[in-house]
Amino acid sequence: MKKYSDLSREELLALQAELNQLYEEEKVRGRKLDISRGKPGSEQLDLSMPMLNTITEDSDLHGADGTDLRNYGILDGIPEAKKLMGQVMGAREDQVIIFGNSSLNIMYDSIARAALFGIMGSTPWMKLDQVKWLCPVPGYDRHFAITEHFGMEMISIPTDENGPDMDLVEKYVNNDPAVKGIWCVPAYSNPGGIVYSPETIKRFAALKPAAGDFRIFWDNAYAIHTLYEDEDPALLNILEECEKAGNPDMVYQFCSTSKITFPGAGIAAMSASPANIADIKSQMKWQTIGHDKINQLRHVRFFKDFDGLKAHMSKHAQVIRPKFEAVLRILDQELGGLGIAEWTRPRGGYFISFNAMPGCAKNIVAKCKEAGVTMTGAGAAYPYGQDPQDSNIRIAPTLPPLSEIEEAIELFTICAKLAAVEKLLA
Amino acid sequence: MKKYSDLSREELLALQAELNQLYEEEKVRGRKLDISRGKPGSEQLDLSMPMLNTITEDSDLHGADGTDLRNYGILDGIPEAKKLMGQVMGAREDQVIIFGNSSLNIMYDSIARAALFGIMGSTPWMKLDQVKWLCPVPGYDRHFAITEHFGMEMISIPTDENGPDMDLVEKYVNNDPAVKGIWCVPAYSNPGGIVYSPETIKRFAALKPAAGDFRIFWDNAYAIHTLYEDEDPALLNILEECEKAGNPDMVYQFCSTSKITFPGAGIAAMSASPANIADIKSQMKWQTIGHDKINQLRHVRFFKDFDGLKAHMSKHAQVIRPKFEAVLRILDQELGGLGIAEWTRPRGGYFISFNAMPGCAKNIVAKCKEAGVTMTGAGAAYPYGQDPQDSNIRIAPTLPPLSEIEEAIELFTICAKLAAVEKLLA
Repeated sequence: MKKYSDLSREELLALQAELNQLYEEEKVRGRKLDISRGKPGSEQLDLSMPMLNTITEDSDLHGADGTDLRNYGILDGIPEAKKLMGQVMGAREDQVIIFGNSSLNIMYDSIARAALFGIMGSTPWMKLDQVKWLCPVPGYDRHFAITEHFGMEMISIPTDENGPDMDLVEKYVNNDPAVKGIWCVPAYSNPGGIVYSPETIKRFAALKPAAGDFRIFWDNAYAIHTLYEDEDPALLNILEECEKAGNPDMVYQFCSTSKITFPGAGIAAMSASPANIADIKSQMKWQTIGHDKINQLRHVRFFKDFDGLKAHMSKHAQVIRPKFEAVLRILDQELGGLGIAEWTRPRGGYFISFNAMPGCAKNIVAKCKEAGVTMTGAGAAYPYGQDPQDSNIRIAPTLPPLSEIEEAIELFTICAKLAAVEKLLA
Repeated sequence: MKKYSDLSREELLALQAELNQLYEEEKVRGRKLDISRGKPGSEQLDLSMPMLNTITEDSDLHGADGTDLRNYGILDGIPEAKKLMGQVMGAREDQVIIFGNSSLNIMYDSIARAALFGIMGSTPWMKLDQVKWLCPVPGYDRHFAITEHFGMEMISIPTDENGPDMDLVEKYVNNDPAVKGIWCVPAYSNPGGIVYSPETIKRFAALKPAAGDFRIFWDNAYAIHTLYEDEDPALLNILEECEKAGNPDMVYQFCSTSKITFPGAGIAAMSASPANIADIKSQMKWQTIGHDKINQLRHVRFFKDFDGLKAHMSKHAQVIRPKFEAVLRILDQELGGLGIAEWTRPRGGYFISFNAMPGCAKNIVAKCKEAGVTMTGAGAAYPYGQDPQDSNIRIAPTLPPLSEIEEAIELFTICAKLAAVEKLLA
């Protein structure tokens, strides 16, 4: 197949007519498909149903230390859950706090506490004239929504296959005391599917922040979410690296079981240096008496240990790998060699990041919508929803059944071709 | 029995010697009893164990509207839970948001949101020079801890058997725009056990706040927590009264199942006018994708409906009423007619409020502690932990078994007598 850029105007017009006809045929089918959000599919949710049997009327709900977990108390989580979630994050128990059902909520709360009360005695961010935040792009829209809501100035940082552009990160963090944080999804990033390289992580750990209350927000959402059974993202341990570099307090790490058991009915956790943990607990104790310990116990009893958790993730991989592979197969078949798009080939996580010809993303998403396929909004992976290239589209293949994904991506490729032709003809 | 104030110095000295001997005998027993916190006892927790059978591997976890409740979504709670918790609070479904496991956390969050972002477009409280908060006393220490943490100036408002002193409440709220809120536990108040009178509630509803973002924090923690089966606190509906008085947006109401099912593993809810609900949801959507819907469903399926919930509360009453009655019997027997203390006789809730001779509370609590009985700290029911009279002690009879409560209260009465004699001799 010829590259579109090598086609003559006549060839392009003929192609456009052909694609338009295909597209019109698709539209009349009245599809209603959604590949916009990173939600597990029902087959994945079924994998965790037996967890609901682990705690019943007859269960002993005392913790290993004898505490009645049905009653008030235990601000920072039961030791058994700290151990398990600590292993997910590469953290010791004394570096872990177990929270409620959402790691996104922990991140919001961590920023809210810093805004209201500061970090380790620093000036509350609300009292500062300006707070800046680094946003590796493409990134997670809900991250950016939080920092936008808090009125921070968000600065985009380009990423490549090794992670964020560390020259730029160092420039900002080491020189500007208004830069208070950076969003990172270090393993199978959202949406790029990137695993940060050892070199990148070592450079993170070696930052010399101008702000004493600068924190790396290390959202390890996909720490063990490989698509290939028993493959390990081989992510360097950020807590250890920061410690080695003399920066033990510079990172907050987050994770949850939202995409392991049930989104909304899972457990979420944070890890950080013991000094950070003490600081957070000193504020957290006014927020709550404690989180849902029965659900913590339910998770621990279901998985038993970290090996059990990893075995469970292998089952997830078996369910979703074919979905990713189908997307890639169709993209390769339909768009390979046309020179109108690139896409990632992630080994884990929940997304494929698609880069169309500049200026085409909004058009593609609009065309998909018109034909009944909902994609994540173009630009969503950028601060303020503004992709300066209008190129990036996030594909989320996990939720629909395989046949629907195939249908949706086939349509998507027609729209991508059509938008490219329109662009070249414009 | 003679009043202590009528005793001669010689009689007091003889009494002191006798009480001291009794006290020393108690001390050597090496007791370790705790009646400090409002925690359910294990017999109460046992009542909810069958709830854990209502959701298992074989359950259909779709909501009444077909939503898969195992997945992401539903910011404000499942309709079934809104209906049930709405009935607890006398609220319509469109006035209700279901949150996580803790109503205290909803209250903290409501204040944090107002501090960071304001209420319905008002100036964020963090940007104001001064924020004041009214605190009916005696009240709930964890309420006061939140407003203290936010640096507010707390103003004590005396209460009597009808509720807070409304002359004073009106004076502050209607004239001072720095007054942004008031803590209220309107039914079986903590610790007084008071049910606010209809007159009090009508005066609340008719307030004309100087601050547009003034909110009544109506913590209806004990809405259905009567000690006497089928008795109703007959609390006027604050949402309706505020609406009638033309103040629909002035109140935030809170409740939870912490003392209905499991503290920490229950569900919590808020109710307010639709305009408030819309305002809260517009901020809340940055905080979380949603709370634990499976646990919401677990509660709804267990209780089935509001009648089921009330029947469940009757079982709680049967367990804890004997504990309250034992405390009152011993207090009456040991301290009745001595003129050294007064105490409340609540019809519901979790506490008995005890007022010792002024200047004696700290001494009594210290003596109890020395003999192995932990009481709530003297002064805890006042802002900044400062009881100006040093008189009030909160008794929490629910957690220990009956025999231990009797032991603890017997010791407590010895300490109360001893402290009174010491005061009279000083």
